[in-house]
Amino acid sequence: MIALLVAAAFSLFFTLLLTPLFVRLFKRLGWGQFIRDDGPQTHHTKRGTPTMGGIVFIVGAILGYLVGHAVAGVPLTMVGTLVIGMMGGLGLVGFLDDFLKTRKQRSLGLGGWSKILGQVVIGSIFAILAVSDVFRDENGLTPGSHFISVVRDVPWLNLFAFGAPIGIALFMIWVNVITVSASNGVNVADGLDGLASGAAIFAISAYIVIGFWQANQSCFNALLDPVVEYKCYDVRDPLDLAVIAAAISGALIGFLWWNTSPAQIFMGDTGSLGLGGALAALAILSRTELLLLLIGGLFIIVTGSVIVQRVYFKLTRGKRIFLMSPLHHHFELKGWAEVTVVVRFWLIAALFVAAGVGVFYLEWVSR
Amino acid sequence: MIALLVAAAFSLFFTLLLTPLFVRLFKRLGWGQFIRDDGPQTHHTKRGTPTMGGIVFIVGAILGYLVGHAVAGVPLTMVGTLVIGMMGGLGLVGFLDDFLKTRKQRSLGLGGWSKILGQVVIGSIFAILAVSDVFRDENGLTPGSHFISVVRDVPWLNLFAFGAPIGIALFMIWVNVITVSASNGVNVADGLDGLASGAAIFAISAYIVIGFWQANQSCFNALLDPVVEYKCYDVRDPLDLAVIAAAISGALIGFLWWNTSPAQIFMGDTGSLGLGGALAALAILSRTELLLLLIGGLFIIVTGSVIVQRVYFKLTRGKRIFLMSPLHHHFELKGWAEVTVVVRFWLIAALFVAAGVGVFYLEWVSR
Repeated sequence: MIALLVAAAFSLFFTLLLTPLFVRLFKRLGWGQFIRDDGPQTHHTKRGTPTMGGIVFIVGAILGYLVGHAVAGVPLTMVGTLVIGMMGGLGLVGFLDDFLKTRKQRSLGLGGWSKILGQVVIGSIFAILAVSDVFRDENGLTPGSHFISVVRDVPWLNLFAFGAPIGIALFMIWVNVITVSASNGVNVADGLDGLASGAAIFAISAYIVIGFWQANQSCFNALLDPVVEYKCYDVRDPLDLAVIAAAISGALIGFLWWNTSPAQIFMGDTGSLGLGGALAALAILSRTELLLLLIGGLFIIVTGSVIVQRVYFKLTRGKRIFLMSPLHHHFELKGWAEVTVVVRFWLIAALFVAAGVGVFYLEWVSR
Repeated sequence: MIALLVAAAFSLFFTLLLTPLFVRLFKRLGWGQFIRDDGPQTHHTKRGTPTMGGIVFIVGAILGYLVGHAVAGVPLTMVGTLVIGMMGGLGLVGFLDDFLKTRKQRSLGLGGWSKILGQVVIGSIFAILAVSDVFRDENGLTPGSHFISVVRDVPWLNLFAFGAPIGIALFMIWVNVITVSASNGVNVADGLDGLASGAAIFAISAYIVIGFWQANQSCFNALLDPVVEYKCYDVRDPLDLAVIAAAISGALIGFLWWNTSPAQIFMGDTGSLGLGGALAALAILSRTELLLLLIGGLFIIVTGSVIVQRVYFKLTRGKRIFLMSPLHHHFELKGWAEVTVVVRFWLIAALFVAAGVGVFYLEWVSR
């Protein structure tokens, strides 16, 4: 509990106080945003705003996590390390992309396929480590599990049903599906000041609640009421998932202070891929994978709008459903103020998260 | 649990779908906002925006609460009724004020003292009902308690220490202090598009968590683990406090959809006094009165800025600490965009609420 509070507070103050310094540094380095030519015209005034702000909150969250553990005197865990690895690794892929953009002064950095290749490399390393026997703990749990999970592992969705080699391959595919979807989801949502960071605060915070509750109702909690033991959770170090989620949320709140309209810094692909990675890792390690469909509901809708638009465009040979995709630009072109779109999308994101946490709790109650 | 979900969903959809109708109705009735001459110049464009939007979410929350109970088939409780009474009663005082403003086309409606008189009348009725023996339940609990509470009743802060007649008088004073402070706090914070409604969503939602946890750990919960029984909560119907808090939060989320920048409707004193009343009632009935200092932290800071400004002005005979009070106008005049102030104040409000809920939980853990 002390680790969680210290981690959240440290990350919060790190980004709140230091983001302006990074803004100045990034400006000096010439790391300004190159605005896409295919976005709304009004966005062209945003040219030159420093990007790669993801660096600030990824570093802040990692430091917060470490400081929290140091102050509380509790050891680091494999699950916390894996979330950090996924967030940092995907953040690095995003950074390469951002960096190439500022160098070449064009809005497209890494090609689409090399970006996905980078995501798959990180996702695969994560997958192998997550179910490796090397990291089995005293209760026999690996950090990840080889069952597909909804709000907990589903026994008949066993990826290892056909033995370990096929199982690991299936698990790697499954992890990559989640990771690529989540990181591209946040990436697509990152188009208006504060939109992605605000929505991510809600989504990541859900795992504070989930991790906390899982720790409370863990099958390895000696104090657990025998009455409810049959519905306990088989999750590795859930409290530490709450700690890293709190560190990331804290860092994002401090970042949003500077990222809200008018943004003084953008998170860039560094930030959006990193956050998507963190969400994927939190969902996989808390064994609530399919629940991410609700918790990340906003990101899914926004990404869905891009897919629907493209498919419809191809099928009809040139007709459009939305004035522009992703969805937030559609509403801008319909005349909503940018900030109206952002706040309303935040509300939608918050409702999805509330629904996700509600479903998680209802499953426990009604079990 | 079903009551809570239905209540929240109903109120949400009520305000989300029907607010535009109320906007049209209020415009036809001529219930437009008269902007204070002593606010920032830029606010004069807001003249004519319909006000008294509080009616929409107060009605939505009450209907949500009733529908939730009807669908779930659970009886209404005295605590839910008292929260509704306080919210509705203070909303009515605010409505009189708003109504007089639109009639007289001046920004000042009821005089300051008649407004406080109205608040005190409602607060006093609430106080008498809350500790009346008539409403003692089968566990011997009255809805309110005659102890001053921090995160639970403090045994040595017994208002009834000198007998019942003095005790009731002291309790009435105490309730009125909380009620007048809370309702004026929200009222002062209601000066920028979405500021008060967004901050209130966070504050009211805190009581969903608190009510839920108190119900889980209630001294009258037959399933309660004997290990933790010594730290159980002596609170009347805490789950129903969570239900009414969820109904109000849901209604506010739907309202904020229309109230965010640029606001299509204001909550008016109807809304801000009603919300303050709801906060006061929730704090009193959940027996977490002094915790409201944290949960309503933003409202306190904003109100504090007005008091500090006035006192300093008088002491120095004409000097000012802030460019303008309340605090949000100070930052506007310093050049922050209105929406920047609003989002940053929301973040502060959310952090206060997180701190409040954190303290509430820490007290339980460390007991």
